[in-house]
This record gives sequence, C-alpha cells and structure tokens, in this order.
Amino acid sequence: MGGDRAPQVVIEGADIIASNNFEVQFLLFGNSKKILPIINHCRYLKGRFNLIHTDEEVPADEKPSNALRKLTKSSMRLAIDAVKDGKAQAIISAGNTGALMAIAKVVLRPLPLIDRPAIVTSIPNKKNKGTVFLDMGANIECDSAVLFQFAVMGRAFAKSALKIENPKIGILNVGSEELKGHEHVKNVANILKNSDLKNDFYGYVEGDDIAKGTVDVVVTDGFTGNITLKTIEGTAKFITSLVKEGFTSSIWAKIGYLFASNSITKATRKIDPRLNNGAMLVGLNGIAVKSHGSTDSIGFSNAIKVAISLLENQINDKIIAEIKANESAISNALNSTNSSSESN
Amino acid sequence: MGGDRAPQVVIEGADIIASNNFEVQFLLFGNSKKILPIINHCRYLKGRFNLIHTDEEVPADEKPSNALRKLTKSSMRLAIDAVKDGKAQAIISAGNTGALMAIAKVVLRPLPLIDRPAIVTSIPNKKNKGTVFLDMGANIECDSAVLFQFAVMGRAFAKSALKIENPKIGILNVGSEELKGHEHVKNVANILKNSDLKNDFYGYVEGDDIAKGTVDVVVTDGFTGNITLKTIEGTAKFITSLVKEGFTSSIWAKIGYLFASNSITKATRKIDPRLNNGAMLVGLNGIAVKSHGSTDSIGFSNAIKVAISLLENQINDKIIAEIKANESAISNALNSTNSSSESN
Repeated sequence: MGGDRAPQVVIEGADIIASNNFEVQFLLFGNSKKILPIINHCRYLKGRFNLIHTDEEVPADEKPSNALRKLTKSSMRLAIDAVKDGKAQAIISAGNTGALMAIAKVVLRPLPLIDRPAIVTSIPNKKNKGTVFLDMGANIECDSAVLFQFAVMGRAFAKSALKIENPKIGILNVGSEELKGHEHVKNVANILKNSDLKNDFYGYVEGDDIAKGTVDVVVTDGFTGNITLKTIEGTAKFITSLVKEGFTSSIWAKIGYLFASNSITKATRKIDPRLNNGAMLVGLNGIAVKSHGSTDSIGFSNAIKVAISLLENQINDKIIAEIKANESAISNALNSTNSSSESN
Repeated sequence: MGGDRAPQVVIEGADIIASNNFEVQFLLFGNSKKILPIINHCRYLKGRFNLIHTDEEVPADEKPSNALRKLTKSSMRLAIDAVKDGKAQAIISAGNTGALMAIAKVVLRPLPLIDRPAIVTSIPNKKNKGTVFLDMGANIECDSAVLFQFAVMGRAFAKSALKIENPKIGILNVGSEELKGHEHVKNVANILKNSDLKNDFYGYVEGDDIAKGTVDVVVTDGFTGNITLKTIEGTAKFITSLVKEGFTSSIWAKIGYLFASNSITKATRKIDPRLNNGAMLVGLNGIAVKSHGSTDSIGFSNAIKVAISLLENQINDKIIAEIKANESAISNALNSTNSSSESN
C-alpha cells in the first residue's frame, strides 16, 4: 500500500515479474477492495498470489516510531512479520522509508555485530558495474565504528550482488588531503588502514568519484548519503530534461531526434531510474528492499528483481561471513569509538 | 600561477576580457619568464597589464597554514595583498582553494559580525536564475550561528549578483520531516523562523531541490556543500558523456547529430561548467573569486566576469547592509550556540 501510486504500481510490477519468472510466489498485504480490481487485469499474477487483507496502512508522512508502535496491523508490518515467520523470503515496499527501517530493525533484528542496518544501492557509473553506495539515509549520525560496519557490509554487497572481485572501498570526503574532513571520517579511514580490509581500502573519494567509478564501494553517513543521492537524481533529471528540450526546440532537432533517438536511449539506458530502482536494507536478518515511492510498475518490478537476486546470491550468508572475518576489527572499532570523544 | 594549466589559461582568460571590456586593468602576479611569452600572443591584453614578478607560488597540494605562514612572496599572497592595499579591486585565482581562503581571511579580514567567510556560487537550475549555494567547502564544521550568517550572506548575494527580489532561503537536509537532520541544521531552521528573515525562509530542502530551483538560496555546511557540488559536477559530466556516446554509436545517430547538435548545444548551454565558473569568497573585506582549477581560458574569463559583476553591483556594501539589518539575530544566534551543547 506504500508509494505514490499504490497499490496499482506495486501489483502491476509483481505481474511483470510473474510473466517471466515462474518460481516466485507473491504474498500481497493490503486493502483487498483496492487490490482485487487491479489483479483482475493482471493475467500472470492471477492464481499466483495470496492476498492478506488489512485496512491499516502506514501513511507516507507517519513518524517511524508511531508506525512501529501503533500500526501493528499495517500492510507494511504484516509483510515484515511474514519474513520473520518464514512465510516470505523477502519484503519489497515502496512506502515510508523511515517506518520500513524502524519496523524491520525491530522485527527482523540486526545481524550479529551490526549496530545499525543501512540502506544500500548501486549507482550507475562509467564502468560496467555500478558504485555500491551506503548509507542512503537510515542513519543521520554515524560514528567511525558504524561507518566501518558499513564498509564491511558494502564490500560484501559488491562481491555478492554485483559480482565484483576484490571491491575497492572509498570513504566520501571533501578531498584527498589528510587533514580534511570530520573526525569520524578520519577515524574510519584509520580503522580501515589498520584492518584486514586494508588492501581493499582506496582512501578518500569525492562526490564526482561516484559517477567516475573510482572505487566500487562508497561509504558515508546517512545525512550526506541521502543528500548526495537526491542530488544525483535531481541533476540527472534536469540534464535529461534539457536534452529533451533541445530535441524539441526546432524542426531540425526533431528530425535529428528521429535518427538519433534509438542510440541515445540505448546509451542513457543505464541511468534510467526505473532500472536502478530497489535499495537493500542491509544488516538485517532477512531481505528487505525499498522501492522509490514515485516509481512506475517497471521500476517496482526492478525492485522485486533486486530482492530475487539478493536471495539467489545468498547475500546475508556472505555478509555474515564477512562480518565474522572482520570480527575483531569491528569490536576494536567499537571500543575505540566508545572511549574517544568523537563528535559527529 | 594557480590551476592545472596556469599561467596560460589565466592569461588567455584575461585576454578574452580585455577584448571586450576596455575599462578593466590587469595586475598579473607570477613568474615573468612563463608569463611574458604567453602575453606576446595576447593582442588585447598587451599594454593593458602590470606584471609583478615573483618566483614563489602556492603548490596545489600545499597545506593552507603553510601557504599562509611561509609563502609570503607567493603570487597568490601578493595578489591578495594588492586588494588589501587598494591597488586592485578584486583577486581572481584558479589555485589552491584552502590557501586562497586562509590567506584572504587573514589579509582582507572578515566583514563585521561574520565569523567564517564562505564560498558561494550559483548552480544552474530549471529556472532562469541559478540556485545560490553555500558553503562550497571552506568550513567543514559549522554550527547554527555560522549557518545563519551564510543565510544572510547568501540572500544578499542572490539579491545583488543575481537580481532576485525576495530570495527564498532553504536549509539542505534529508527531508521535510521536522524530526530529521543534525542538531545544528534544526537549530538554524529555528533561528531563521524567529528572525527578520522568516518571510524569506522556505524551510528544509533536499538534494534534488537544487536543480529544481525550489528556493533561491541553499545553505549548508562546507562538508556537505563540497560533496554536493562535486556530485553535481560528476553526474553532469557522466550524463553528458553518455549522450555524446549515443550520438556517435551509429551512423544514424551521427546523422541525427548533424540536425540536432545546434539545438542540443543551445539547450545545454546553461550547464556548461565554463559558463558557470567563478565562486565568490563571501564575507571578506574585498572581492575574491575562485576559478575551478581545471577550467580553460573561456572558463577563467567567466571567473573574471563574476568579479567584475560583483564590483559593479557593490556586493559588499549590500552584504554589510544585510548584516546590519540582521545584527541582533546574528548576535542572538551566536549566544544561543555558545550556550548550547550543539554538536556538529
């Protein structure tokens, strides 16, 4: 029931997956009065779903703490409960991000040694495989120990979901100069340099390194991460609209468009936000994927694809293995953060 | 002598200005052996400049504190000294940003009531006039009192340099929800709501609001600001390269390009980084403009244009007037920050 055009986009997205994936079963949580009429014209999804009716839903502007405590019969809550109870293997939602994280954290619990689950996604870059980027906004304040955990999880995500061998990790900062940056940013760089991940640690990266693909994993706090990601979205939309404007501004340009549109569409396909939709809530006992609230059915189907791929790649087993391999570094980071007066 | 292709780009940029502006006189600071051969083929600049020779220059990777204390005969230092001594009305540099700010702050001194000068620029957006954005990276840690000063200066900049009446101010944050964001971000929002600027205060904005032009002035700390700006640059370059790739990927696309290139170039002209080059060091007794280090002569000439326009608009008189009008709010903000345990 979450997202700007729910439940239509959600159900039609499921229908797209149902049309070419015969193994997936769908549990749909929400208002049956709204859902059933839509399913009626979804020919692949018909007969492939269980509908669990509930009247309650989490409004887009609901406080996460309220959603967690008071909306215990909401479609979001019931869907997450289903993952916890083993009735579903993954939850996909286009709803309230803060509520999704708050409920998932309490219901599914963080993985061992992980304090703060994060939201991770892959951002298109100049290379074939995207830049793994976290945290997208779940954790506004992060100390260096938390950022180190993000690095461990981001690396596991890059290996498992993006099939990148020996992914390079970068810490987002204002420059390569050693002296720059917040205290917790400098501290996590030191922790990484002295950890078993030191060979995979590239150092600091700047905002333009995300699109360049300088490193495979970019780690930052949720405040900077959310602003960075929204800035990328806004800039991409703006430039795309300028190019479109150019193509329609004269009769010659319109003729040019007839010749070039196929190639332009193909070349810019990798930045289609729908095909990049679907961000993992990483660090939880269970797979949870967040879809952009304003996406369409193709975008939502891509978020479902992300969840399927994470399951097929057994991402959480791999993250747990990475966490175990870095157990002492994670503990040391926690201890040094707790004993320092790191402000963040 | 600063920037990737100095002094060539700098001198050729001055030549471009000399070619169509007959009032401007140029003081050039740097190595005469390198500068004179270039001036030889600059026909407009010839006879319109004074060259002050110095062997010393500030390396791109020099620590600001070292540049300030040790390189007292550097081209950058002498140029800033010339503004202080009234021999020049503005300094334009493509060199080390940190050093430029450190030297300018000590030599020119901040304006009354301003603690921290900032770097401000105008970012292209969907509207006719750009989004005024500060701080671009001079101040990594900012408390709410400093952010409030940025809002006052940014508003004056929007009015004076961009001729925007009643510019709307936004604070960069992760979302519109009241509860979100760092303590100092929430505090500056409260200060603004209770100040004389309250009618011009829009509230929180997100990363995508910069390109949308939701507000006229976006205020943030130098850490977030620098990352945001570099992210915009990186994303813009990446998408532009994808479109170019599309235009060259087939014979049909190449034909299409012949028809559409004029219109596309015109439509995307407003995001040409060269035409947006030139950021003001705002809050100083004197005009200082920073050019991107990697720009070309057209870009550098634009940075000179920015300086000329700031002088013509008497920007500092207007900023001082705005500061005076908000004197009590600035003092109150300082007091409340000093007495609170605001972490940032």
